[in-house]
Amino acid sequence: MCEANAYLIEGSETQLIMESVDTVEPDENGISLVSIFGEQKFLKARIRSMALVDHKIYLEKLE
Amino acid sequence: MCEANAYLIEGSETQLIMESVDTVEPDENGISLVSIFGEQKFLKARIRSMALVDHKIYLEKLE
Repeated sequence: MCEANAYLIEGSETQLIMESVDTVEPDENGISLVSIFGEQKFLKARIRSMALVDHKIYLEKLE
Repeated sequence: MCEANAYLIEGSETQLIMESVDTVEPDENGISLVSIFGEQKFLKARIRSMALVDHKIYLEKLE
């Protein structure tokens, strides 16, 4: 399975926000994440970068 | 391997832009894609949605 883990970067801190993310939908207010288990989260954040082979999505807060 | 294919959606058209994308880095001007083969592309586009388990990244053009 090719889900990824989503991390929120704040300054020098990196916090795991959600494991096993399947779908990601950004909009102007933030980003929706849904895991393979059906867990849903909306964050006031945007994608900073993704490394799919490493299963990692890095988010940063929207100001 | 958990790379994904990137597609550009324009109206009712969906065009394959890059296969086997590993890293994705959005910025305010567009989005950088790098494949597992080292191919690089920069597009004036943003992420509309991603379905990682299906290995799909959907992009749409920035106005």
